[in-house]
Amino acid sequence: MRKLKLAVLGASGAVGREMLRLLEEYQIPVEELRLLAGPNSAGTKIPFRGKMHTVRCADEESFAGLDYVLGASDAPVSRRFAPAIKQSGAVYIDNSSAFRLEHGVPLVVPEINGQDAFTHEGIIANPNCSTIITLMAVAAVHRLSPIRSMVVSTYQAVSGAGVQGLRELEDQLAAWVQGQEAKPSVFSAPIAMNLIPMIGGELDGGYTDEEMKMQNEGRRILHAPELTVSCTCVRVPVMRSHSISVNLWTEEAVSVDEARRAIAAFPGCRLADNGRPTPLEAGGQDLVLVGRIREDLTRPKGLSLWCCGDQIRKGAAANALQIMKLLEEV
Amino acid sequence: MRKLKLAVLGASGAVGREMLRLLEEYQIPVEELRLLAGPNSAGTKIPFRGKMHTVRCADEESFAGLDYVLGASDAPVSRRFAPAIKQSGAVYIDNSSAFRLEHGVPLVVPEINGQDAFTHEGIIANPNCSTIITLMAVAAVHRLSPIRSMVVSTYQAVSGAGVQGLRELEDQLAAWVQGQEAKPSVFSAPIAMNLIPMIGGELDGGYTDEEMKMQNEGRRILHAPELTVSCTCVRVPVMRSHSISVNLWTEEAVSVDEARRAIAAFPGCRLADNGRPTPLEAGGQDLVLVGRIREDLTRPKGLSLWCCGDQIRKGAAANALQIMKLLEEV
Repeated sequence: MRKLKLAVLGASGAVGREMLRLLEEYQIPVEELRLLAGPNSAGTKIPFRGKMHTVRCADEESFAGLDYVLGASDAPVSRRFAPAIKQSGAVYIDNSSAFRLEHGVPLVVPEINGQDAFTHEGIIANPNCSTIITLMAVAAVHRLSPIRSMVVSTYQAVSGAGVQGLRELEDQLAAWVQGQEAKPSVFSAPIAMNLIPMIGGELDGGYTDEEMKMQNEGRRILHAPELTVSCTCVRVPVMRSHSISVNLWTEEAVSVDEARRAIAAFPGCRLADNGRPTPLEAGGQDLVLVGRIREDLTRPKGLSLWCCGDQIRKGAAANALQIMKLLEEV
Repeated sequence: MRKLKLAVLGASGAVGREMLRLLEEYQIPVEELRLLAGPNSAGTKIPFRGKMHTVRCADEESFAGLDYVLGASDAPVSRRFAPAIKQSGAVYIDNSSAFRLEHGVPLVVPEINGQDAFTHEGIIANPNCSTIITLMAVAAVHRLSPIRSMVVSTYQAVSGAGVQGLRELEDQLAAWVQGQEAKPSVFSAPIAMNLIPMIGGELDGGYTDEEMKMQNEGRRILHAPELTVSCTCVRVPVMRSHSISVNLWTEEAVSVDEARRAIAAFPGCRLADNGRPTPLEAGGQDLVLVGRIREDLTRPKGLSLWCCGDQIRKGAAANALQIMKLLEEV
């Protein structure tokens, strides 16, 4: 691979820092690295390949001469800088939700629809974390027979709320062990020893934007414009891996054995040896672990399964770097 | 209510102790109370109404002259003593799974099928905890139009594994806060900061006995012999309230507003004010909290909802005492 000139936008957050760790782990050749963030994080020092790098305040001039900008910011920041990035000629691989449903912006999970990445016009969107992990688990089944609908319940780690989400769970658990009260600040209720059955903002009909991503983004990634997904997103007191309980229905029946074989052979997936993968096992690596594959009991042509994946890695940073590798290695 | 002569079989466990607390809280008139358990727990002292009572080793002679035996033992112990209890003339309200599917043994949630309790021939079975909580949440919808099928994912507290499950989570969290490793003993994997996506023993087809209770017991309680339920049971690091994500389909369409009104009016249920009840809020009281009521997006005539209930109370001890009150207060 050629040596790349890269920027990470939102470098000081949980996903930005993971992108830097993964650039090291994947041994991506880097000629130049710019760490960019908002004014509050400017000056932060972050190690990369043995040297400390200083985060600088992003502005419209920050992107000149780059090959890629890896976006780890939120959607408003992404929208603000996208025109400047596009103008600079860098390819913008954006982890925010800003452009995921935009025409001309491919929404890519490399193992599923990698070919879509090559149609980009300067921006490639990285899907929602729960959506990536769920679709990785079911994509092999979708290739056997198209998925028509899914009922999904998530068990989402606190890392989905960034560094502050991680710290809030740690602090609340420490308080709980000492018999003190856990005061919520990032989340709407205590998360230690508790569950919060709503993630994201509520839309008409009662679903949240987070819940609708599974259907809206799933349709684009699977090339299945008629796909319907009924999703319930739940925050659980787990650090960094999301888990998802899925029931799905296909056009033609797929047996449990067929599904098991196809999932085992799908790149980026692993069938759990004991059939019941846990989020702890999924943490710190890129594979999506799948288990509990059963026939759905409510309707014909249905399957039920469980999957776990590291939210910060395959759910975000790893998927973004995999998109970059895909574009570079062709 | 007349003064009752009662025994609690399995008095030293989490459910047995809760039965004693609830006899106090509900101000049930008690003339005589016998605390019974296996030989390992004999001699344990448990307070009741300000006096210490000693747990005695249960044998076939333990039940003479009683009005009710409240069963908080496991299924093998229940099976062993059921003939002696029946012969004694006491009514046996059994929280174990031993007789739940047996002909002639009503399986009762008082708010749903209380009338069934009066058909008993000496034994009344208390349903599975997740099943009670789920059915409490959906029973009002079932009265509007019969439920044909449900897809269910549970978020089950460690109290479902008894006092030892509660202690294992506490110990693992204390270890985690001190940076030590959490060693599993009651559960098959660490439960602190983790999820375990299998509860109970695996049957043919990959479902567990725990998962099939939702269908098998649901059919009897709802008087819906054709009901199909596809259930995934997951242990979560929560102390004592189970939560359940439910998608259900009815014979005729029920609107979200109709469902909301019916659930709000159903005895034993409460709609959460903010629409998203948490297991912490459900703990320490008997109401099942319901929220996130939405139209299912995958098929017509479907609804999606979320519910939480105290597993030790409404999921076990409270439901058993409510059955006894029902029989006494007529």
